[in-house]
Amino acid sequence: MTHKQFTDTPAPPYFAVIFSSLRTAGDNGYREMAARIVELASRQPGFLGAESTRGQDGFGITVSYWESQAAIQAWRVQLEHKQAQALGIEKWYDHFELRVAKVERAYGKSTA
Amino acid sequence: MTHKQFTDTPAPPYFAVIFSSLRTAGDNGYREMAARIVELASRQPGFLGAESTRGQDGFGITVSYWESQAAIQAWRVQLEHKQAQALGIEKWYDHFELRVAKVERAYGKSTA
Repeated sequence: MTHKQFTDTPAPPYFAVIFSSLRTAGDNGYREMAARIVELASRQPGFLGAESTRGQDGFGITVSYWESQAAIQAWRVQLEHKQAQALGIEKWYDHFELRVAKVERAYGKSTA
Repeated sequence: MTHKQFTDTPAPPYFAVIFSSLRTAGDNGYREMAARIVELASRQPGFLGAESTRGQDGFGITVSYWESQAAIQAWRVQLEHKQAQALGIEKWYDHFELRVAKVERAYGKSTA
């Protein structure tokens, strides 16, 4: 895995949380909290990594990868993360969609 | 569903193809082919929609949503799409990862 943006996931099956979101205007503490959430997630058991990007129109997709549904559930109820979710809904996102999925097949290629 | 960037997916289960990619420098026909691929996908049976974004660093994520694994498979073998895949590997992407996943749970919120 030669590019840092990609998560070096194991062979399937594993789980993905697909978070699509449209940001509000202005930072409103978003950057700081987003960095904090990544740090917290990386300490959760079963966290495999995350891939994230956002275009200039404010629409972004973050996919986090997890060993199990149980690991996702434990993260979901993590207190500080819950607080961040509540704040995010109010301040950071005009709209979001969250989908939990089981990865069944995967392949990739690096040509550089 | 008030924002065009989001796909108005049905209740789970349905399927997601998570395509993470890092673009090469230069267009090399990428925009034209990307638009053509979206048009072709939208005509495939079982296609539910797609969400896509790319940051200024060239890293992007596209998630397409499908009714079934069979619909994904049919798209995969669609001839012109296969040609585009082959071209893309050569010209457009330094690196990509493709993951096929079954969406088991989903929720969203629009605050605007």
